[in-house]
Amino acid sequence: MVQLEDLNCDLLIVGAGPAGLMAATWAARCGLHARIIDKRGSKVFHGQADGLQCRSLEIFDSFGFADRVWKEANHMLEICLWNPDESGRIRRTDRIPDTIPGISRFQQVVLHQGRIERFFLDSLSKYSKIEVERGVLPAELDIDHSKSEDYDAYPITVKLRHLGDDAATPFQHSTNVPDGLFRSSLAKDDTDDLIRKSKGKEGTTETVRAKYMIGCDGAHSWTRRQLGFHMEGEQTDFIWGVLDIVPITNFPDIRMRCAIHSAESGSVMVIPRENKLVRLYIQLTEVRSAGQQVDRSAITPEIILKAAQKIMSPYKLSYDYCDWWTAYQIGQRVGNKFSCDDRVFLVGDAVHTHSPKAGQGMNVSMQDAYNLGWKIGLVVNGIAKRSILKTYQSERRRVAQDLIAFDHRFSRLFSGRPAKDAADEAGISMSEFKDAFEKGNMFASGLAVDYGASVLVAKAEDSADQRDGTDVGPQTNGHTNGIGKVVGKQELASNIKMGMRFPSFQVLNQADARPWQFAKFLKSDGRFRVILFAGNLKNTQQFERVQAFGEQLAKPDSFIHRHTPPTKRIDSVIEIFVIHSAPRREVEFLDLHEIFHPFDEKKGWDYNKVFVDDLSYHEGHGEAYKNYGVDKERGCVVIARPDQYVGWIGELEDVRDMDRYFSEILLPQA
Amino acid sequence: MVQLEDLNCDLLIVGAGPAGLMAATWAARCGLHARIIDKRGSKVFHGQADGLQCRSLEIFDSFGFADRVWKEANHMLEICLWNPDESGRIRRTDRIPDTIPGISRFQQVVLHQGRIERFFLDSLSKYSKIEVERGVLPAELDIDHSKSEDYDAYPITVKLRHLGDDAATPFQHSTNVPDGLFRSSLAKDDTDDLIRKSKGKEGTTETVRAKYMIGCDGAHSWTRRQLGFHMEGEQTDFIWGVLDIVPITNFPDIRMRCAIHSAESGSVMVIPRENKLVRLYIQLTEVRSAGQQVDRSAITPEIILKAAQKIMSPYKLSYDYCDWWTAYQIGQRVGNKFSCDDRVFLVGDAVHTHSPKAGQGMNVSMQDAYNLGWKIGLVVNGIAKRSILKTYQSERRRVAQDLIAFDHRFSRLFSGRPAKDAADEAGISMSEFKDAFEKGNMFASGLAVDYGASVLVAKAEDSADQRDGTDVGPQTNGHTNGIGKVVGKQELASNIKMGMRFPSFQVLNQADARPWQFAKFLKSDGRFRVILFAGNLKNTQQFERVQAFGEQLAKPDSFIHRHTPPTKRIDSVIEIFVIHSAPRREVEFLDLHEIFHPFDEKKGWDYNKVFVDDLSYHEGHGEAYKNYGVDKERGCVVIARPDQYVGWIGELEDVRDMDRYFSEILLPQA
Repeated sequence: MVQLEDLNCDLLIVGAGPAGLMAATWAARCGLHARIIDKRGSKVFHGQADGLQCRSLEIFDSFGFADRVWKEANHMLEICLWNPDESGRIRRTDRIPDTIPGISRFQQVVLHQGRIERFFLDSLSKYSKIEVERGVLPAELDIDHSKSEDYDAYPITVKLRHLGDDAATPFQHSTNVPDGLFRSSLAKDDTDDLIRKSKGKEGTTETVRAKYMIGCDGAHSWTRRQLGFHMEGEQTDFIWGVLDIVPITNFPDIRMRCAIHSAESGSVMVIPRENKLVRLYIQLTEVRSAGQQVDRSAITPEIILKAAQKIMSPYKLSYDYCDWWTAYQIGQRVGNKFSCDDRVFLVGDAVHTHSPKAGQGMNVSMQDAYNLGWKIGLVVNGIAKRSILKTYQSERRRVAQDLIAFDHRFSRLFSGRPAKDAADEAGISMSEFKDAFEKGNMFASGLAVDYGASVLVAKAEDSADQRDGTDVGPQTNGHTNGIGKVVGKQELASNIKMGMRFPSFQVLNQADARPWQFAKFLKSDGRFRVILFAGNLKNTQQFERVQAFGEQLAKPDSFIHRHTPPTKRIDSVIEIFVIHSAPRREVEFLDLHEIFHPFDEKKGWDYNKVFVDDLSYHEGHGEAYKNYGVDKERGCVVIARPDQYVGWIGELEDVRDMDRYFSEILLPQA
Repeated sequence: MVQLEDLNCDLLIVGAGPAGLMAATWAARCGLHARIIDKRGSKVFHGQADGLQCRSLEIFDSFGFADRVWKEANHMLEICLWNPDESGRIRRTDRIPDTIPGISRFQQVVLHQGRIERFFLDSLSKYSKIEVERGVLPAELDIDHSKSEDYDAYPITVKLRHLGDDAATPFQHSTNVPDGLFRSSLAKDDTDDLIRKSKGKEGTTETVRAKYMIGCDGAHSWTRRQLGFHMEGEQTDFIWGVLDIVPITNFPDIRMRCAIHSAESGSVMVIPRENKLVRLYIQLTEVRSAGQQVDRSAITPEIILKAAQKIMSPYKLSYDYCDWWTAYQIGQRVGNKFSCDDRVFLVGDAVHTHSPKAGQGMNVSMQDAYNLGWKIGLVVNGIAKRSILKTYQSERRRVAQDLIAFDHRFSRLFSGRPAKDAADEAGISMSEFKDAFEKGNMFASGLAVDYGASVLVAKAEDSADQRDGTDVGPQTNGHTNGIGKVVGKQELASNIKMGMRFPSFQVLNQADARPWQFAKFLKSDGRFRVILFAGNLKNTQQFERVQAFGEQLAKPDSFIHRHTPPTKRIDSVIEIFVIHSAPRREVEFLDLHEIFHPFDEKKGWDYNKVFVDDLSYHEGHGEAYKNYGVDKERGCVVIARPDQYVGWIGELEDVRDMDRYFSEILLPQA
């Protein structure tokens, strides 16, 4: 075997599914030297669709490709609930909006995972030289714990094995229709098998030394096993079949998302997809799991179709084209630890598994990586302190636990038999189901995530008591002088919640009057943002406050100058935006302090930093101040993290608190 | 010289600028065997920007790439007028919206022509094998007039000459900054020169026989000269300079479109562009044209900048980066004829030239080709009669004349010196200028185009009296029986005007509740559309009317069956859409007649044909019936041409009139 030359890298990502690609995308935007490997020989071409939450679309938008998803995806607007009537015939009993109106500028959509991966790959090649290395398997992992806190060290050593094409192509059960059994929870993991096989064949190995590593290697995570971490929770008895077909049917709501409970034959969830496809999720009552053993050979597309036909009777259902199918058993588990030494991290299915019906899996997995990627990026680049890395576990483990609880409740309601009447206690009450569905919608949007107090989130609560007990609070070294930790003033912006993502409303660019969703400017490029709600600039006193705030920020020893490398642009670590509430036509852009529209010798003033909450010519009024819950006269200041979560809120005079907030997170620059 | 084999093609397009590419795009969508040649060796990389009208964006959207333009382009929202005050200092005197609110779902934007060409090229390669053949020049043209009316003939013979790389690269005056002088009206045409030069060199020629040919070969059109057609109109004395820079300036409205009139130093038009670029149009009072001769060597970027600095004083203006510059003299001319035998057509600058300041040139040129492309496509494919080709000249020549009139009025006002006071008759009144600007905005949107009565537009007027006198009316052969020509009932849809483009409002898909701009379904694929405003389907009587209308259309001898090739899908020549006004939740999609949602054995029902005017969950209410001016109870029927212009309006009972309309246009299929 050939031994390739050893190479150091900032970040090694194991697994190139959506979570791994999300991590790689952050690495690309932060300019890291990262590698991403996957044992599979090709990306996903069929199946593996998931619903995309509003929040996932917002994140895609922050990377610049939500528009591609939005254009290609099927938009799901309404959920129709079908239940048996007195005679046992299914009837449409309710319609509810799929996405709660007003919570996001996006609504939930569905698109094939292969397309999502394509958009990530296109983004990677646009912004970096990072390429997915396919047919590459990690074989040995070694961590030098003594060097974990050394910023310059490469404490992780991984031996990689390059597979031949044969070994990297997953086994398919049928040659006609691709199936996803090889990724299903019903399939045994084949990693060890692949390692063993590849040893007897030609191939190459190489040894990589990395500063950081992320295991995005799925439910059977090889990385997790090397770390000796375990999953907590249970396997359920429910077996589910999934069928992607172009249906031929007279069922009237086939293009709606439907939850159909039959009287006696079980339940089906209908998920309309792009290109006339429809996905059916069906509980397979015929196939029983005896303990951990399921007879996989008993599951075929025909069995799944027959189950659906029975549930949806008297409506007819058949198909000419089947795109993909799979089957799975629900496991509901969360990893006990999410990181080792804050050097090796686990994300996605590697630390939480659950049922796919609520369309959460891909979303939560991607959002794990989204939470983590910028933190590693800023630490590697010498901008942020290593202490921020602890917040990955404190923030995401609670989300995973919430997800399992949601899935547990939802699966039970969905899988159960409908109650015949109020006295039927063994049956599921359909009004309870509808209620759970509606409440679940907020969770399912991804917008209910609320991170606890930490060095990154200036909430009043004790950060040591938050989440899983990890102390993620400020280190108070030299910045507190007995005045306690920084606590933001939530009351200044009632709809901008510390710990939650910064919401988006329409504002106008002061310089050219163009309307924008403000979130369009909160790009995922690793920068913190200071958003100055400048209030009514036509009020002389308020204008003075704004200019005084600018003076403070512009001082040579301000937190902005202190944390920005002297060779970089002044907005490269912390970017400042202004949103004022005076009439656009009565304010002159250049009257504002220069720090709010920095000058460049070759490009002139920056015209994309100052916005106004005013009526647009063609898109109405965004009513941003009202929607954000900010006082139109006096305004306030908000700090948004690089992932758009709100870190701190304060008055224009609270510059010292901002200084303390950033001092805890960021390293001083020479 | 090598003689390549002779090849027949349906359509030969000469010139691969935006007009030529638009024609090629239609050819691609209609499945024509088309060739497109250009004498230049490469596409445009700098300069040549134009504003894009609302209508151009709507057309791009019908081809599926407006979103790419919308994302990259600079959006122009506001026009600021600057004029001298009593002391002679320039002041902002007015702000007006750049696009009249409400007239389109798009607003005027600006983007580099090279990007527009890129989107066309991408679209071509997505839908066809048509590729631009660069460095290819037409050298001889021969038309066999005796075969003009033979549908199967190839009456056009063109000898093509393939240039070497040297000859195809335009001469540049400076190596630093690209200039556009080689395309300017100040430059001599180099076509003859290129032909002469290429004769002495190695290269190849080939002889092409074509059914149709379009000359999109610019102001010096070689095609026009071969046909012996001439341009009517005059050259003006005004010399204009154009400068594309990233400005460094304290002028407050540099990101707005501005018309700045100085007291004594002339005028400048500011056009903010993408990537921080700004285009300045400046009248060069220093450079005078003596008759037809202009001293081109006197024009440099520095001269243009100095003129701008003088006009914009006391504001400062300089630049570090200049992207492109050019100069031109305004000629305002229209071709006497637009076609020869309805076989060889001229479009764009080949038949109309004018000043570029109003951002009209590229738009009107593309729209010429847009008007023509589908007509040739349908005739070549044996779907439509050759008589529809006559409407190209009748419809577009009037638009060109209107454009020259607009440009004449606008240029005079823009180029003139501002009046000092009401008594200053030699000066231009600024209120007159503002008035002209506002009125011009409707014209400049491209939405004022109103085609006259013809076989394609069932207006009451006599089609022989319309436009340039060409008789473009019905041939009345066997379909009238003394009852006169078909005239649509304009009163049934007060805001859907026959002769104008079908406007767009939001409707919901009945099957999945998704909101759409209705125009999204009026794609440019060569199909006519019947839009049934089905009214209130909850009214039993109205529902019966709708079903009866469906019965008529579904009959084996209906105009739809008669004009659709038996091997093609029933919606492949004429597509039917339904928009009803009953509450969405009270209508079942499948209750409507099958003709309104055709069945496919492999794909089931078509779920994208039936829409409803109702409240959406996230995008408000489109109020489509109100906005279209259609009665919510009784509805009406509208015929839209493949280019979205409205051909006919009638009652649900007027099926015989629809039959007569289509019989005049379309050929019966076996």
